[in-house]
Amino acid sequence: MTKLLQANHMLRIKTRGKGFTEITEDLRRWLGGISAAEGLFTVFVCHTSASLTIQENADPNVRRDLMEALEGLAPEDRPYHHAEEGPDDMPSHIKSMLTDVSLSIPVMDGRMVLGIWQGVYLIEHRTAPHERRIALSFIGQGG
Amino acid sequence: MTKLLQANHMLRIKTRGKGFTEITEDLRRWLGGISAAEGLFTVFVCHTSASLTIQENADPNVRRDLMEALEGLAPEDRPYHHAEEGPDDMPSHIKSMLTDVSLSIPVMDGRMVLGIWQGVYLIEHRTAPHERRIALSFIGQGG
Amino acid sequence: MTKLLQANHMLRIKTRGKGFTEITEDLRRWLGGISAAEGLFTVFVCHTSASLTIQENADPNVRRDLMEALEGLAPEDRPYHHAEEGPDDMPSHIKSMLTDVSLSIPVMDGRMVLGIWQGVYLIEHRTAPHERRIALSFIGQGG
Repeated sequence: MTKLLQANHMLRIKTRGKGFTEITEDLRRWLGGISAAEGLFTVFVCHTSASLTIQENADPNVRRDLMEALEGLAPEDRPYHHAEEGPDDMPSHIKSMLTDVSLSIPVMDGRMVLGIWQGVYLIEHRTAPHERRIALSFIGQGG
Repeated sequence: MTKLLQANHMLRIKTRGKGFTEITEDLRRWLGGISAAEGLFTVFVCHTSASLTIQENADPNVRRDLMEALEGLAPEDRPYHHAEEGPDDMPSHIKSMLTDVSLSIPVMDGRMVLGIWQGVYLIEHRTAPHERRIALSFIGQGG
Repeated sequence: MTKLLQANHMLRIKTRGKGFTEITEDLRRWLGGISAAEGLFTVFVCHTSASLTIQENADPNVRRDLMEALEGLAPEDRPYHHAEEGPDDMPSHIKSMLTDVSLSIPVMDGRMVLGIWQGVYLIEHRTAPHERRIALSFIGQGG
């Protein structure tokens, strides 16, 4: 191993309420800035009512269907014990549990090994816009 | 990089049957013991009928609703092909598949980057109490 | 730390259409080939209509029930906005979102810390056979 690199960063992303925000470019930019070459990249969302997923980045209808699928699995009109924070809060926690809080993506030749159709998304589950914190971590070889 | 640290540990947690057991403090204690400063922390559950999640740590009703949501997604009263180990076994595997077997949490300034409301939980899906093994791994900089 | 090792590899797995393909041995073979001793192993699938899970490796009926559970959570006979790629495409994305795109498995004493009943599986969600790319990454101590 030529040059070992370990770096962390806290990214802040503003959401516009329920929906998908692609963060692939934000991740690429940070990896480029630290000259990550080969290793392991981890993305972690510091919240329990927003989450992460890697999904098809071509047709926006895919995200529309994904969101509707999540609504079906955790409907707002069901009675919840935890209801103090509004009808969208408990479904947000359920949707977070069913999707990802952390993603680990290998980096080869200076790039995340994402497939051609894979985009990394932050999913906002709350109705209102939020600023979300996403922790980034790289460990491996620098360029 | 000043001092590279790589450490693993096997944690054992006793559950009381179906439900959430918070392990955040167990994780903090181990990270403190090895003087982890900056890097990547991974938690892995060595079972297929118990799993991990990071969820709201304030109102216990959140975990109650999460458990009921999981019961709804994998009901015990459905006919399963794999039924030899009791009605709670196959739903346990489904619930494990839908939640997390591994979590990767960046460590910054000697602490996991958990949000203020994020707790790390072991979810026991079987009706009977079990002792569960959870593998911990840290790689990064030591203090 | 005696000898730091960081290695990546792209594995290719042929699937036979919808179903589980166990890849545990492929992973073991690669880890053995690079003499991984202690550290963190990550598996990442470069697709959005195939995914990963760690599940019971004994009774094949478990995988049959898991597949039926996924079909129930993302049925093909539901109307989807994204329908151009066939009735099995959008359900594949939903099933991928609900299962795992990446798995992080600690390695101790030269072996993945998998429990005795844990096998690592690639899940093909499309009806047709595909060749799937799976990125492997190890960082830690070499033997």
